[in-house]
Parts: sequence; structure tokens; C-alpha cells
Amino acid sequence: MRELVVIGLGHIGGSLALAAKTRALFPRVVGVETDAAHRSQAGIAGLADFVVPGIEGALERADLVVVAVPPRETAAVAVRALAAAPKAIVTDVASVKAPVVEEIAVRAGEGAKRFVGAHPMAGATGKGPASADALLFDGRNVWITPGAADPAAVAAVEALWHGVGAHTVREEPRAHDRLVAAVSHLPHVLAYSLVRAAAEICTPAGAVPETGALRAARFSGPSYESTTRVAASDPKLWTEIFSLNASAVVDSLDAFTTKLATLRAALAQAQAGDADPLFAFLEEAHALKKESA
Amino acid sequence: MRELVVIGLGHIGGSLALAAKTRALFPRVVGVETDAAHRSQAGIAGLADFVVPGIEGALERADLVVVAVPPRETAAVAVRALAAAPKAIVTDVASVKAPVVEEIAVRAGEGAKRFVGAHPMAGATGKGPASADALLFDGRNVWITPGAADPAAVAAVEALWHGVGAHTVREEPRAHDRLVAAVSHLPHVLAYSLVRAAAEICTPAGAVPETGALRAARFSGPSYESTTRVAASDPKLWTEIFSLNASAVVDSLDAFTTKLATLRAALAQAQAGDADPLFAFLEEAHALKKESA
Repeated sequence: MRELVVIGLGHIGGSLALAAKTRALFPRVVGVETDAAHRSQAGIAGLADFVVPGIEGALERADLVVVAVPPRETAAVAVRALAAAPKAIVTDVASVKAPVVEEIAVRAGEGAKRFVGAHPMAGATGKGPASADALLFDGRNVWITPGAADPAAVAAVEALWHGVGAHTVREEPRAHDRLVAAVSHLPHVLAYSLVRAAAEICTPAGAVPETGALRAARFSGPSYESTTRVAASDPKLWTEIFSLNASAVVDSLDAFTTKLATLRAALAQAQAGDADPLFAFLEEAHALKKESA
Repeated sequence: MRELVVIGLGHIGGSLALAAKTRALFPRVVGVETDAAHRSQAGIAGLADFVVPGIEGALERADLVVVAVPPRETAAVAVRALAAAPKAIVTDVASVKAPVVEEIAVRAGEGAKRFVGAHPMAGATGKGPASADALLFDGRNVWITPGAADPAAVAAVEALWHGVGAHTVREEPRAHDRLVAAVSHLPHVLAYSLVRAAAEICTPAGAVPETGALRAARFSGPSYESTTRVAASDPKLWTEIFSLNASAVVDSLDAFTTKLATLRAALAQAQAGDADPLFAFLEEAHALKKESA
């Protein structure tokens, strides 16, 4: 493997290109970035050995291609990459796997054997090439959905992620989407919803010249900061992720709402003098958290 | 002010004693700790100049007394401290203020003028004297509920918190409890509930020798870690806090559930092809978060 091409130098793609270049995993790292301002930022940050404006001509010598574009465009760009580089292995970074993998299976024909789905469980709330971080994947989990891919292609993609310090976990695309709905998409749902609820509750009643959101933040403690951290994530990206995985996200949300209703009933019982069900609920959650700490 | 007495050397009381001692805010810092093992830990950690087993005889020379016992015992211990030290200013650290302040107003008579309610928005998930941290309050917010207290008593309590690096905010007890329900108690409700929902969703269907909680943690990303961090908090303490503030917590939970229902409807619309309401919801939350960042 001599040449890595990363298509899309945003937060994830830019960080991956930089991590691969910094750790010298390939003799050549090429970045593809269609946005002129982002190309300039990527050049200044030195994210890749070469940064080019389009796929055309960029994939001729590619051995491994990472598609790091928004989730809705991922399958289409991967299909183009598989056609433009008939021997290269192609992978992606989308948070939702079944719709991407299934579209590629339908549209790429034999090429689908060279496609390996991947999803790094990493990412800060930054955006664009300027937010690239060579250590972003260090110690993080990366899902791999081998599906019908050649074992050699799977091994090459796993080696890339191991090379930048991540652990890999294999899973089927639909199971991945269901699990990730619970452990990543649902926390984002809660963060966005909590910011809105807290801003409403904290809106001053009188003529106080301060918004509810500012008051919530000013009066809050570390728990609010932790829980709402990812509400600073890009709403356009998360609209795409939630839309692509809507069914699994709704299922997770419903399971969560059921727990919330149980806890609400326990709060009412505690108010009426019996705190045992409340304590039992919290103790069980605490034990589960400690078990996995 | 020559002598500070901290009653209860747990995570908050121990950290406050240590912070006051480290910064030499008083010539003498005395700790009261009824638990023998905790007294020993407090002695080893050097949390105070003296550590004694009970209130009796410990308050004779006290100028300022901080009651840092569990929320349900706070009012009773504060009433005892006001009687035992007839000239001292007494304050507390409980997360819920109205029930504490109201009980003291009823039971302490004139002594209530020397009581100033306080609530530091700080605390890690540690427990006991061994988890004391002299920098725990650095840069944090501390609520002060002056109520009917003497202005000089309020000033002394604010000076203590400023001395350990915190900012203070004044508020009425009931308004405090309502705001804190939204920006501290509700995030804890969400953390405990998310751990339970995620463990359930991630429970393996087949004969996989791994629990749902372990799988959730193993497969999760940074958002799950942030959102569930405080589920490691002491369930006994949080049963007391939730019980004392049940009405405001239920109100916050209901406001949150309404937002969640709006987001769920937007997810269903996105699944049906119209992602605009979903984007509008997320964009509004993102703007509120950025506004207060």
C-alpha cells in the first residue's frame, strides 16, 4: 500500500489524513476537498502531502480510499471511487451503515467486494479542516461492517485504524445501526432536547435582560455541561444522521422514554413518602454504570 | 473570623475544609466527622487542622460553621449548630434549598438570622474524605439564598466561597430549586435513565457472554461517556436530593419530555421525507448552546 486518498477534509477526514501522515502509515497521503476555503485551510494545516479539488485524476494511483463526506453523499461518492480506482479498496466513516452499504451493494456490482464500511466513534464538536486533530482516534472504537467484502480489504481497513491508534469491532450493518442509535445517536437527542428544555425553564419571568439559555449556562454545574456538550455539534450533519437512522433512533428514544416514565412514577412515590422505588432505580443504574466503568 | 468548622468531611465538606486550609483562609480549620473510618482518612489526607468525632464541644470557638451532611439531615444539624454556637454564622451545601431554609426558619427562631443557605455547583462522582479536592470549587458557581439572614452573615459566607475560588449568585430558595432542577437534577435523571435504556437495548440476543451494560460501554463513543458520567454518582445521596426537590424535578422532566416528543415527531417526518422540522429543532438547540458557550 503506497497511497492513501481521503475524500473530504472535514473534522473526521482531515483528522484521519493528518493522523496517517503524522504516523507515516503511507508514503503518500492525498486529500480531496471540493471547497476552496477548506482546501486552503487544509494546505495551511498540512493535513496531506497533496490536496486536490476533485476526484477526477486523484484516484489513479490510490491503494486505499476513505470517503469522508456527509452521510447522505457517502454511498454515491463511494460508488464513483470504486469505478475510478478499479483496484483500490474503498471505505467510509458514516455514522449509519445499513443504508450506505445497501446502496453500494446495489449500485457498485462486483466493486462492492472492495468496499468495507467503517464508523469511528470519535469526533469533537469542531468542524472543517481547521479542527483536524492527529490524535482524534487514539484509543477510540471504530466499527467495521465487513458484509460481503474481500477479507483482504477488511484487513487493510482495520490496519489503517489500528495504525492511527484505534480499536476495531466487527458488526453487521443493521445491528451496528441499532446499537449506535442507543450509545451515540440517543445521547445527541438528549443533549439537543435538554438545551431547549433548560432554556425554556430558565427564561426569566420578569424584565431581566438575560435569555433562558444564558441563565441556564450561568447557573449550571458540571453535569449540565457534560450532558449538553454535544448539542454544539453541527445540526446539518446530525439531521442527516438522524434521518438515515430514524427508525432505530425512534426505537431507542421510546425505550428511553419508558425508563423516564418509570423514574417519574418513582419520583411521585418518593414525594408521597416512599423513596424505595426511586432508590432501587438509581441503584440499578449506578451498578450498571460502575460495572462498565 | 478565626475558626472555620466543617461538619461532615465527605466529598464536598472535605474538599471545602481542605481548600480553606490550603489557602489559609482561617487560622484554624476544624472538621467534624462521625464515621471513624472517614475520620482516619481525613486525618491522613490532612483535610483540617483538627478532626473531631462530634459537634459537642467542637463549636465553642467557631466563627463560621459549614453543615456538609446529607440533604435530609442538613436542617436538623444546622439547628443544633445555631444553638451550640450562639454567635457563629452557619451555612450549608445542600442541593435543595427551600425545605432546608423553611425548616430552619421554623425551628431556629432568632438563630435563623445567622443561617445563610448555600449550594456549590461542583462535585465529581467521588465519595468520602479520600475524594477531597482542594481545587473542586475553583471557577465554579455557588448559589447563595440570603432569605432573612443578616447582611453581615451573607457577606461572610460569600467571602468563604470567593476565598476558595468560586463565583456566587444570589437567589430565592424556591427559584433556586426550580432552576437547579433544570440544570443539575434533570441531567442526573437523564444519565441514570440512559444507562438503563442503553443496557437494555444493547443486551445481546444470542448466547453472548457479555451484559448489555458492558456492551453499551464497549461500543460507545464520547457522547455516551459525557451523558452518563454522573450516573456514577451516589444513588443514596441522589435519592435524597430528588425526593426533597421532587415537585420541581417532575416539572423539569415534563418540560423535557415535551421537547423529546417534538423531536420524535420531527424524526418521523424526516423518515417520511421531510427533514425540515428536524433541522429546525436541532438548529435552534445548537444556537442556544452556542449562545451560552
